[in-house]
Amino acid sequence: MINHFAELLSPDQVNRVHEASLHILEQVGLLVRNEKARDTFAQHGCNVDSENLIVKFPHQVVEEYRKLMPPAFTFKGRDPKYDRTIPDQSPVIVTGSSAPNIVDPDTGQERRAESGDIARIAALINALPGHDVFSISTLAEDAPEGQFSLSRFYPTLKYCQKPIRGNTPNFDDLQQILKLLEMVAGGKEAYREHPFVTHHYCPVVSPLTMDLDSTEQTMYLAREGLPVYGSIVPNAGLTAPLSMSGALAQGNAEFLVLAVLIQMIHPGAELIYATLPTVADMRSGAYASGAIETGILHIGHAQMARFYNVPCGGYVGLTNAKINDAQSGYETGMSTVAAVLGGADMLNMTGLMDGLMSFDYAKAAIDDEIALMLKQIKRGLEFSEENLTLDVIAATGPGGMFLDNPHTFKYMKTTGLLPVISDRAPRRGWSDKGALDSNARAINRVKTILSKDYPSFISQDLDAQLRAAFPNLVQGEFVPFGAPQPAVGMAAVSRN
Amino acid sequence: MINHFAELLSPDQVNRVHEASLHILEQVGLLVRNEKARDTFAQHGCNVDSENLIVKFPHQVVEEYRKLMPPAFTFKGRDPKYDRTIPDQSPVIVTGSSAPNIVDPDTGQERRAESGDIARIAALINALPGHDVFSISTLAEDAPEGQFSLSRFYPTLKYCQKPIRGNTPNFDDLQQILKLLEMVAGGKEAYREHPFVTHHYCPVVSPLTMDLDSTEQTMYLAREGLPVYGSIVPNAGLTAPLSMSGALAQGNAEFLVLAVLIQMIHPGAELIYATLPTVADMRSGAYASGAIETGILHIGHAQMARFYNVPCGGYVGLTNAKINDAQSGYETGMSTVAAVLGGADMLNMTGLMDGLMSFDYAKAAIDDEIALMLKQIKRGLEFSEENLTLDVIAATGPGGMFLDNPHTFKYMKTTGLLPVISDRAPRRGWSDKGALDSNARAINRVKTILSKDYPSFISQDLDAQLRAAFPNLVQGEFVPFGAPQPAVGMAAVSRN
Repeated sequence: MINHFAELLSPDQVNRVHEASLHILEQVGLLVRNEKARDTFAQHGCNVDSENLIVKFPHQVVEEYRKLMPPAFTFKGRDPKYDRTIPDQSPVIVTGSSAPNIVDPDTGQERRAESGDIARIAALINALPGHDVFSISTLAEDAPEGQFSLSRFYPTLKYCQKPIRGNTPNFDDLQQILKLLEMVAGGKEAYREHPFVTHHYCPVVSPLTMDLDSTEQTMYLAREGLPVYGSIVPNAGLTAPLSMSGALAQGNAEFLVLAVLIQMIHPGAELIYATLPTVADMRSGAYASGAIETGILHIGHAQMARFYNVPCGGYVGLTNAKINDAQSGYETGMSTVAAVLGGADMLNMTGLMDGLMSFDYAKAAIDDEIALMLKQIKRGLEFSEENLTLDVIAATGPGGMFLDNPHTFKYMKTTGLLPVISDRAPRRGWSDKGALDSNARAINRVKTILSKDYPSFISQDLDAQLRAAFPNLVQGEFVPFGAPQPAVGMAAVSRN
Repeated sequence: MINHFAELLSPDQVNRVHEASLHILEQVGLLVRNEKARDTFAQHGCNVDSENLIVKFPHQVVEEYRKLMPPAFTFKGRDPKYDRTIPDQSPVIVTGSSAPNIVDPDTGQERRAESGDIARIAALINALPGHDVFSISTLAEDAPEGQFSLSRFYPTLKYCQKPIRGNTPNFDDLQQILKLLEMVAGGKEAYREHPFVTHHYCPVVSPLTMDLDSTEQTMYLAREGLPVYGSIVPNAGLTAPLSMSGALAQGNAEFLVLAVLIQMIHPGAELIYATLPTVADMRSGAYASGAIETGILHIGHAQMARFYNVPCGGYVGLTNAKINDAQSGYETGMSTVAAVLGGADMLNMTGLMDGLMSFDYAKAAIDDEIALMLKQIKRGLEFSEENLTLDVIAATGPGGMFLDNPHTFKYMKTTGLLPVISDRAPRRGWSDKGALDSNARAINRVKTILSKDYPSFISQDLDAQLRAAFPNLVQGEFVPFGAPQPAVGMAAVSRN
């Protein structure tokens, strides 16, 4: 275990960032476009300027409601054995989500992602041991009109029993998805008992603005007691000050507003202090999600989250690389280690390339290994009197060999992580096995997993009901690698 | 800055590891092959069994001498502007060293390294901004008989003014190198005033054994007041117990013996708590220097070093990959971030592939970028009242834009690291530039640096003196990339 997280701020500095955020909220305020949110803030003691839509937050109000945040959050799975509660089960590993594109596993070329891709990705994430939560990795270009979100959630539900995390662009889509979830669960009550989708939004648009649709949906779900949280996404130099501490203070203020809104609506509602903080590459304005500054800012936000006693995490290690090269490895690896040692409980980190633009199967498999390494860090040194092995050291003695010690046999599969993609053979051994790079080894691992058939977790009966309820629903069928693709005609028919 | 390092052990557990190490030294002891070391230990209160060469260390003796360790270590450069003191200037980035092979930059094939390679590598490391210390990266296959070490140090001194760290296999080589260094410095006294080579050895062979030659040289240098330290290299499952805490306790005991020996010889001598702790891959016995367990153990050793108030670090992030692929990136990136956030002051981490077997130019350039990212972590959030930028946030306001703010212009080159190898262009922009992977971009960077000519830091006069003093000395000449190689005949002549 980690006895003490890395800290970049002193306790006094943490306190000062909190005060600075309160100052921002009280003096500068937020532009709140959603009327219901303005009304809620007004009803709870905030000062609303109905002309310019600026809401200002007396610090007493923020202090009152932020103290209602509970200290844990549970991602619930379709199968409860996959439930994950943070911080107890940190780090919880989540896919990166909502990429428009996919690197086609057959051609290696990028193309628009479709619902069939989501079915395959769902099956892969359900199988990969390092992954805890599936945040639907891509959009579905083949979505029939009016089924943007259905075309993403339906294939996901067919092939993934781990907790699902997803977004809907508007209230209509949200209602459609809730109907789908209730049908899958066997009724509204059954779903509410164990809601296996966590909804996620970005209601705050930096700097200091709340939007219409995401805010609306977040408020609705909070009121209904369904799992929901939001991420704060400041980009220093563009939508936040070009200063690490300044970006932290602004982002922290933005989180507080969202948290306070949720607590005003539903006191004690579980939430996550979730962020995607970046520093823009000021040479080109490029979005630098893979930069080390994202990892550094996550350490800062984690410190603020501990000050508020609320679980935290977010998007981290999402590489700007376009292929699985060294950059992809170090960008995903470095910022996520920083986040875990800084105390982030949840990491939206796997499977995406090119700054969240495309999903790549091999990347997901590589990131699964990185995820297992992160979990190994959390195991730490496994200190105990027995693990000090003073008896083993004495019995082996100076100049002795530990290899044939019974203690070594007992622990040979559990002490060190035994990776499946990282290659540890010397150059000749590696060369004799084909001199594959880790991308090729990862593709092989994905093909091994996805060449099997995966039965749907949605029964035929239920499927018929869903198809009756949602005409034109995509097939969202899992097709094993190597098997013939479904005829284009079928997909085309279902689109019309 | 880092306000608090990550910790895997509680203060009580740190204390218990220290006690466990004392117990090992008192009850099990060390096999000490070097007679002078045995004599030194005996003279200072240890119990030496002259038959089986086992030395046992009363804990009072260990406690007395380990308390003499000073809290800092300075790597001195040929040019004092490159001097680096840890922990003040942590993290100090050092090349990995003594690989027998090199990946030939022209053919991409691995071959034995030669003195001309060392000249080029020295010039590269002298130029790369993330590197602080050059630990001579390779051996020199073309070394004339009796000049194994000369053939490594001489080309290094010609092209590198940063602090040099190096090893000699035996006492004769050490004497030859000291003579070389004194001549280069302009005399013994001049060299002693600012000794720009730090000698490094592994006198302790795990488990619990001190060798002959490395011990001899370490003792000599300590006595002479010249910079020297040793690394502890336990490999859990083979030369240490297969337990993270057990390997830590044994490695800590081994460090204490070495530290105590040095302090007995030269009270107050600067040293480093240096380690290369690994966990063997028990499926094959493979050496897993790239495994995350190395990073985890470094956090533990750093905690012990802080308990002793002595600077620390060592070999970390040395990948098992054979090429610059994702594995190479995440293995080097992840364990080094863990080490830095755990408080390691010095990292021997760059340029090597295949578990320390070969040097690769592109790897060195990529690792230089990783090094700059590590230094960015140490900068942290740069907290100050000014950097909270409350005025900038207020002036920009909700929904505003920071891009055209004067504050943004002022800090656009300094807030975020501006990498030269990591590519942040979107896929199309990257593709238009040739779709190069980071290995290819790194090779380009190396070629840009090494296609220039670098004059020798050894004058012609001095060179003539050195050649007179050391007949048959290799040329060790820097040849720019793209320039014709020196005639094979020349090298062949100098070998005979």
